[in-house]
Amino acid sequence: MAETADTKKAPDATRRSERSRRAIYEAALALVVETGYARTTIEGIAARAGVGKQTIYRWWPSKADVLLDAFLDLGRQANEAAGADAEAYAELPDTGDLEADLKAVLRATVDELNDPAFEAPYRALAAEGVVNPELGLRFVESLLEPSLQLYVRRLDAAREAGQVRADVDPRIALELFTGPLAHRWLLRTLPLTHAYADRLVEYALRGIAPR
Amino acid sequence: MAETADTKKAPDATRRSERSRRAIYEAALALVVETGYARTTIEGIAARAGVGKQTIYRWWPSKADVLLDAFLDLGRQANEAAGADAEAYAELPDTGDLEADLKAVLRATVDELNDPAFEAPYRALAAEGVVNPELGLRFVESLLEPSLQLYVRRLDAAREAGQVRADVDPRIALELFTGPLAHRWLLRTLPLTHAYADRLVEYALRGIAPR
Repeated sequence: MAETADTKKAPDATRRSERSRRAIYEAALALVVETGYARTTIEGIAARAGVGKQTIYRWWPSKADVLLDAFLDLGRQANEAAGADAEAYAELPDTGDLEADLKAVLRATVDELNDPAFEAPYRALAAEGVVNPELGLRFVESLLEPSLQLYVRRLDAAREAGQVRADVDPRIALELFTGPLAHRWLLRTLPLTHAYADRLVEYALRGIAPR
Repeated sequence: MAETADTKKAPDATRRSERSRRAIYEAALALVVETGYARTTIEGIAARAGVGKQTIYRWWPSKADVLLDAFLDLGRQANEAAGADAEAYAELPDTGDLEADLKAVLRATVDELNDPAFEAPYRALAAEGVVNPELGLRFVESLLEPSLQLYVRRLDAAREAGQVRADVDPRIALELFTGPLAHRWLLRTLPLTHAYADRLVEYALRGIAPR
């Protein structure tokens, strides 16, 4: 939302705004990791980022908005670090081999969930969403569901290619891949590994009953 | 743990102990729902239950132990209300029809997760487990993993009966059923219904690829 306002400003002001925004994101993520979502405040974020409270309120209506934008930015940075387009995640890979593509996506998800830079803030946000329906809804709408829709589109393409049965609902089927992965990560039942991701894809595509 | 100590006491003392224990469980669950796990204290539980702090410390070493026992007791009460043996959950149903048995189990799980008496305290505990590895581990060891092992045994029996492929690892396969259900419930992505539970079982058993 700030981009549109900034582009009207002089280059120096834009650079200053960009520095402030980055400082605010870093402060917000650090605070939510250290003290939890409930005790993170706009005042605390402003103090830690070295900006005025009004700077934050000018750009975001609430702390939930700051944090959700900070998370989106974290994802963008991870993509950049991985050499991908920062606004990537347009689609899941489609080489024509559904099993290989899903294994690649789930293995990358495993790596992301196991990345310490990502893990602590994502856990803090997910934990709050579990007990706070309003934040949970915004988390799902702005972060989770858009990424799940990528699976819907990939499974739709696979269905058209005859690699997924016509009577399968992609919005449910995708949860066979993402649900176990997220659950194992959230509750730390067993290690999240590439081998586990591969098994999930194989079981979900072929089923566990004899053919 | 308290049962063994109590059985040595006179009947009146046992009844008093039982009343205190019930009051402590109720206070602990109410507090964790109202103020969250982090702000729930042994002092607060004692005050609300109308017992001395020492009564709690005599039976439980920490608030995590009180809460985990309170949850186990909640599960026992739910079983009693459903007419089942309080110490049931010995095994999942085995009528010989794996699909029907798993649908019955997942539908019952959906009903339990949608039960308001159960939902708020379970969410509070799960949320804390997401950000608190020590509590998360105890939650998994004392509550979650034992229930997952019921699936392992049922899938093992199905494998011996030729209804599950010999090369399938039951400890991973069970997550195709429980992972999506738990994830949908924890993050409230979409409604948890019996129809959803049925689809999960069908997809996981048969796979989503054409046969």
